[in-house]
Amino acid sequence: MLSQPNAQPATTAFGSRIIALSERLAQWSESRDGLTCTYLSAAHRAVAAELCALMRNAGMTAKIDAVGNVVGRYPAADPAANTPPSARTLITASHYDTVVNAGKYDGRLGIVTPLVVIEHLHRTGQRLPYSLELIAFSEEEGVRFAAPYIGSSAVAGRFDMKLLERRDANGVALGDALRQAGFLPEAIPRLARPPQDLLCYIEVHIEQGPVLLQAGLPVGIVTSIAGAVRHLLTVRGVAGHAGTVPMALRRDAAAAAAEIVLAVEKRCRATPTLVGTVGRLAVPEGAINVIPGACELTLDIRAGDDATRDAAGADIFAEIEAIAERRGVTIEAQEIIDNAAVACAPRIQQLLAEAVARAGVRPLHLPSGAGHDAAMFDGCTDLGMLFVRCGNGGVSHSPRETVSAEDADLAARILLDVLLNFPSPP
Amino acid sequence: MLSQPNAQPATTAFGSRIIALSERLAQWSESRDGLTCTYLSAAHRAVAAELCALMRNAGMTAKIDAVGNVVGRYPAADPAANTPPSARTLITASHYDTVVNAGKYDGRLGIVTPLVVIEHLHRTGQRLPYSLELIAFSEEEGVRFAAPYIGSSAVAGRFDMKLLERRDANGVALGDALRQAGFLPEAIPRLARPPQDLLCYIEVHIEQGPVLLQAGLPVGIVTSIAGAVRHLLTVRGVAGHAGTVPMALRRDAAAAAAEIVLAVEKRCRATPTLVGTVGRLAVPEGAINVIPGACELTLDIRAGDDATRDAAGADIFAEIEAIAERRGVTIEAQEIIDNAAVACAPRIQQLLAEAVARAGVRPLHLPSGAGHDAAMFDGCTDLGMLFVRCGNGGVSHSPRETVSAEDADLAARILLDVLLNFPSPP
Repeated sequence: MLSQPNAQPATTAFGSRIIALSERLAQWSESRDGLTCTYLSAAHRAVAAELCALMRNAGMTAKIDAVGNVVGRYPAADPAANTPPSARTLITASHYDTVVNAGKYDGRLGIVTPLVVIEHLHRTGQRLPYSLELIAFSEEEGVRFAAPYIGSSAVAGRFDMKLLERRDANGVALGDALRQAGFLPEAIPRLARPPQDLLCYIEVHIEQGPVLLQAGLPVGIVTSIAGAVRHLLTVRGVAGHAGTVPMALRRDAAAAAAEIVLAVEKRCRATPTLVGTVGRLAVPEGAINVIPGACELTLDIRAGDDATRDAAGADIFAEIEAIAERRGVTIEAQEIIDNAAVACAPRIQQLLAEAVARAGVRPLHLPSGAGHDAAMFDGCTDLGMLFVRCGNGGVSHSPRETVSAEDADLAARILLDVLLNFPSPP
Repeated sequence: MLSQPNAQPATTAFGSRIIALSERLAQWSESRDGLTCTYLSAAHRAVAAELCALMRNAGMTAKIDAVGNVVGRYPAADPAANTPPSARTLITASHYDTVVNAGKYDGRLGIVTPLVVIEHLHRTGQRLPYSLELIAFSEEEGVRFAAPYIGSSAVAGRFDMKLLERRDANGVALGDALRQAGFLPEAIPRLARPPQDLLCYIEVHIEQGPVLLQAGLPVGIVTSIAGAVRHLLTVRGVAGHAGTVPMALRRDAAAAAAEIVLAVEKRCRATPTLVGTVGRLAVPEGAINVIPGACELTLDIRAGDDATRDAAGADIFAEIEAIAERRGVTIEAQEIIDNAAVACAPRIQQLLAEAVARAGVRPLHLPSGAGHDAAMFDGCTDLGMLFVRCGNGGVSHSPRETVSAEDADLAARILLDVLLNFPSPP
């Protein structure tokens, strides 16, 4: 099927409204300067209320669910398609909470882009042959309770009720925080969508990296959401006087750590989609005139698929062992995370790629190195993600994060195209 | 000349007394556990009084000077050699202050070793053809006022009177601390010895490193006291999301720092006496899932001679520039210390080597990577240093520092030999 250019508004109308809505939502913040909107804060509640109103104005039924998600429903044209057993729903969603000192687009771009598309459908009197749900997930970043994906895990039927006992930095348990905000945590299990009711899950998200920017492309199709394996490493050598111990007699923990940093870099450079990062690196109580006796570092390895990631991990740990052996130091490793990669459905990738091509853009497929709400729906329904170019060098989790109105506009047109051309449910 | 074995006491008598005296001096400490004896503390004053008494018992005139040094004098056999203009003095000295949680031998070995030798001379009724001064310097480590060599700089005529205004961690100025202890800081300039009165300066010191231990030798002859050049380095790259920025697009500050660490190690390994250390290494506010945007590290380079050190410094900084260029990061360097190396006099090295050989030990010449009081006498008189093997892997500035009674005994015998065979002053 081809897109329907006549049904679309003037170029950049979507884009300028997406930017304006993003600015509007960013007015609510916990901090005076910059944007911080963490789970169940006053700013967070205000954004939820605003989103609910925006959804209703766009012709949706909307409510805030038991975990704080704002759930808007744009019903199918055929009333029969809105009631079980024939009800089928396409979910498009992302999160409205933010990190501390955040940008305005991480998460929210994936809410306001579908919103302007649905506003357009409503304004032009168009209905779809299926129900469309726009969900603004309440919590993805994991800032307040050190537990990410609270909102999406509930909808995907993966919410762990034990989390209700998890406490924030002030000692407030998640369950109590929900009750204080007027929610019923007992109702969370009922938020799970039956998989048979779902057509698919599509998420628009800012790339949060520089790949599209470097490629000169406004959007890209996500192939998979990388799993991460993370380790804490401690190198123990022998401390000594920086002046009196000859080089050949040293067992310098920082020099061993330096070799690890470069081994990670070298191994990960050799393979597409693979990334490896030593983000923390420190000689505890280091002194300018003391040979480091210990060095602590972290390791984060991700790839588009688990086999690639695991092969790299095996090679890196073999190299770490060789470094320890050669230098006469000990290296302890503690695995703290091992998340599998999640693949985007080939059929959704293809639908997205066709719409991207129809918009005159070369379809670039790329993995997501960051985690996203979409990953929660793995095994529940088919996933797809559309990445939008991240300006300013690709910086995210920062007030310097930018998206251009032109790119946002194009993303909305592509999403509209996908929705209009989505294969009818059986 | 040959040594006079008959004039010496039974084997290990010197050694066991050196160990016993070191234990005795270590009883005075600022801390309940372990040894800490910093400048002008009660423990420090008690050690000075004890040393004064020990020196007097050894037939010396002894006093505590205006900067807290304990100065013992063992007069020459010929009364004429004790009064100007023909007075000539050989100084042997080291320091009695310690670092925090120190060993018992760093500094003090160079006081108690000459002391037991002079006790022997006194006991056997021997005088030397020159006056011998044993000085226990009051301050070398620089712990209290962040100013090392206070005691020796005064005797060498290099004391900077501006230091009297320097304050300790409690805000007490050095001048006030001296006056409170009953000293007259105004008199410090008068402590300087006229160079023409000096025969030479000889210091016995624990090696504080593993070279003699690895060589299987109890003592060694110091060739020079290394100068140090020290820099603070800051690498600035670009922070980014550990999952979303492909390896090829990264400007990782920690990876650049890792290359510097290994470049320092590689360059310094290639040249004897050269050592280079990155003692502090840290990604400020590093996070496991963030590519390091900055990394801070320190650089300490030392060598037996300045040309070797400076050539290494030039090569390392050329490599640092190449790393910055290649990786697209900036690297700022701030030089904080540049001390020239100090050579030990060839004639004193030769006298020490002859005595070492007469003791049946292969004379090993080695540079000192650590600074010592002896360096203050550069340009004032000829210097020599005798290093004594540091046990326990060569560890110093630690309660685990050890010297064996056998090695201490040998050092005392060698010092006695040098003193007895020292060429008569003109």
